Amino acid sequence: MEQIPRVLSWRNMLVLSLAINFSLILRILKGDDEYSLYRTAYFSMWPVASGSSASCNYNEMEEEKDDDRIINLKLGDPTVYERYWQEMGEMATMVIPGWQSLSYFSDNNNNLCWFLEPELGKEIVRVHNVVGNAVTQDRFIVVGTGSTQLYQAALYALSPRDDSGPINVVSAAPFYSSYPLITDCIKSGLYRWGGDAKTYKEEGPYIELVTSPNNPDGFLRKPVVNRSKGILIHDLAYYWPQYTPITSIADHDVMLFTASKSTGHAGMRIGWALVKDRETAKKMTEYIELNTIGVSKDSQLKASKVLKVVSDSCEKSGNETAKSFFEHSYDALSKRWELLRQAAKNSQHFTVPDFASQRCNFLGKVFESQPAFAWLKCGKGIVDCEKFLREKQKILTKSGKYFGDDQSYVRISMLDRDSNFKIFLHRISSSFNSTL
Amino acid sequence: MEQIPRVLSWRNMLVLSLAINFSLILRILKGDDEYSLYRTAYFSMWPVASGSSASCNYNEMEEEKDDDRIINLKLGDPTVYERYWQEMGEMATMVIPGWQSLSYFSDNNNNLCWFLEPELGKEIVRVHNVVGNAVTQDRFIVVGTGSTQLYQAALYALSPRDDSGPINVVSAAPFYSSYPLITDCIKSGLYRWGGDAKTYKEEGPYIELVTSPNNPDGFLRKPVVNRSKGILIHDLAYYWPQYTPITSIADHDVMLFTASKSTGHAGMRIGWALVKDRETAKKMTEYIELNTIGVSKDSQLKASKVLKVVSDSCEKSGNETAKSFFEHSYDALSKRWELLRQAAKNSQHFTVPDFASQRCNFLGKVFESQPAFAWLKCGKGIVDCEKFLREKQKILTKSGKYFGDDQSYVRISMLDRDSNFKIFLHRISSSFNSTL
Repeated sequence: MEQIPRVLSWRNMLVLSLAINFSLILRILKGDDEYSLYRTAYFSMWPVASGSSASCNYNEMEEEKDDDRIINLKLGDPTVYERYWQEMGEMATMVIPGWQSLSYFSDNNNNLCWFLEPELGKEIVRVHNVVGNAVTQDRFIVVGTGSTQLYQAALYALSPRDDSGPINVVSAAPFYSSYPLITDCIKSGLYRWGGDAKTYKEEGPYIELVTSPNNPDGFLRKPVVNRSKGILIHDLAYYWPQYTPITSIADHDVMLFTASKSTGHAGMRIGWALVKDRETAKKMTEYIELNTIGVSKDSQLKASKVLKVVSDSCEKSGNETAKSFFEHSYDALSKRWELLRQAAKNSQHFTVPDFASQRCNFLGKVFESQPAFAWLKCGKGIVDCEKFLREKQKILTKSGKYFGDDQSYVRISMLDRDSNFKIFLHRISSSFNSTL
Repeated sequence: MEQIPRVLSWRNMLVLSLAINFSLILRILKGDDEYSLYRTAYFSMWPVASGSSASCNYNEMEEEKDDDRIINLKLGDPTVYERYWQEMGEMATMVIPGWQSLSYFSDNNNNLCWFLEPELGKEIVRVHNVVGNAVTQDRFIVVGTGSTQLYQAALYALSPRDDSGPINVVSAAPFYSSYPLITDCIKSGLYRWGGDAKTYKEEGPYIELVTSPNNPDGFLRKPVVNRSKGILIHDLAYYWPQYTPITSIADHDVMLFTASKSTGHAGMRIGWALVKDRETAKKMTEYIELNTIGVSKDSQLKASKVLKVVSDSCEKSGNETAKSFFEHSYDALSKRWELLRQAAKNSQHFTVPDFASQRCNFLGKVFESQPAFAWLKCGKGIVDCEKFLREKQKILTKSGKYFGDDQSYVRISMLDRDSNFKIFLHRISSSFNSTL
């Protein structure tokens, strides 16, 4: 029998085996951090991220075969973010034990918003400090089941309690189509929709809703009514670097944000408000207590994890292989807007807004806004743009009439899946060229 | 040097080390099944269940040292269920990837309630069929952020849309203290609180809220007004075997349930409605769309898992070592009510309600109700029972005046943690004996 080479002696093999023992034990003890493997049906479907960077390549959009299906871009379902979060893999996985969060209450040290999970509060402050898009110092955080619920909480909190009748709530057209519906849905005696802020002439107190960047058209906004008894609510759902340059740190009395449009987690139903005034924050908390006895703890814990991943990605970024979440998302929207503008230029029969380029303090570059929605205007000859796109090209959009504007405009989601967006581009390029 | 014993030779140690490697690798690959270890701060605190049966022993309540702290039994925080869910361990653990549930929408085959997760719908039907407490056949399921939101959705759906002014909403006193607050909080033009159903005399349409078993007093209820234009909402939050015998399968037009009181997962914020009429279900869905654009998908997925564990436990039960969730919960409440009744008998200065014994079709035995709240009445000499207990014994309860009844009554939670309940029992036994 040949002698076993010295390097393969029992002792050396034992040392090697013990080293493997040690690393496996460390792996188990490290638990649900980067290296743990979960064999749920979901995980077996997707690639496991081996590091902290996602490698989404948005520069090459392959051709998508048009199967003639209806393309629904009517709503802002943020599925464009799916790819990033799939590639992040277990980095953003939440493990929730069955015994956790049974209680209505959080261990939150008598926080004014008694149902806010402390971890979420911490991550909200962190992400705003990292991005530099909103003041958090000396602000109360109120968490809500989406910013939709927080909007209603703010109306409840800010409406007067005297017998002067419902306060008017206005916003400059084109305004977010849901605002009038939400405001008036149960005919509140505290507040009511007062219409277009640009034409608002009534005396007395009013609430003005300033959405900036605006939904549907993407423009940055300031208050419009500007009279002495105005109370402002700032909806900053889209004030993130993937949509618009961050030129200053927003500093308003009531600022609303939502996970749906910052990280893309719409199904999670988490929003938050940064509120200056204690009494206002207290009343907003009271509304949410009466409406839903707080906010899902499971969603709050997931949101804190997701925001942590986002903030971590910002702090680790700096080179091609380790872009932050916002850089990835900026790239995705940048490419889409570039293609849309090209299609508009080629077609010459529809337009999309132009935005002034500005320097973004967070991304460190100059660019023009690339909003979550395209406010597309059909050219001459087309009175009802929504009808035209629906009937001629099976593209569903939301008509400008729902935004207090006219039917020559439509709002089109720029946040849908790649496949839908590509087919949309292809169809609008051909529809306008062949029809007009 | 001594010769190393043969058993400790390099070769044998290598074999042992390789065997350890193999089992560690298996452990990692098996992932989040029964044997995986999660090193989160939470898991290090609790024992990991090694099987599917929980072994909660409620028969021996050890003495709890009274540290003179304030005992708050004012609210129905269902922490009594923590022990069961801790002992279930990973059986009820939910693993939620970061990329899951980004979308607002579910893949739910055009379900009327478009944001309902199909898995949750399935488990809701299953648990009701297993327990036999409500008809699900031909019913629409509407999911909500707790039954609190569904109550408001039902009011929205059932209120007339003519110009007749807000419809009155009534309930027989003592009624759930939050109903008037929720109903009137934003002074809706569609509905308003109309007070005690027992003294309601107005003509025309009305909505009657029937809570059965009732909160606060635990009695089974039927409609009280019984006039021709009445619309009924049945709040069946406590119609589960741990609280009351299941004597029949509830069959009403609108039936509300909540995870908070069925499984104890209050922080999850999940409730559901079983609705007979399609238009009513559609309008309830519309309300929740306007209020919060649906319901947290993460909570829905967790709820479906929790309900599955509960239904599975019912199907596996049948002997001492494998009790169902409901049998465990029945035992916990049974013991508490026995101790409370004993304390009442010994003290003779306060009373709690007696209930008729009935046969429970699910548990297969005869027992009297053991509600989630004790509707305690202080004896003569004590006009304000809440004040007495708060000042003399540092026990916080909810005064009967908030339930449309008088101050000699208080509502006391029977769902709090063992430690708090024990101290409460000890104090009320001594307080009444020493003071009166």
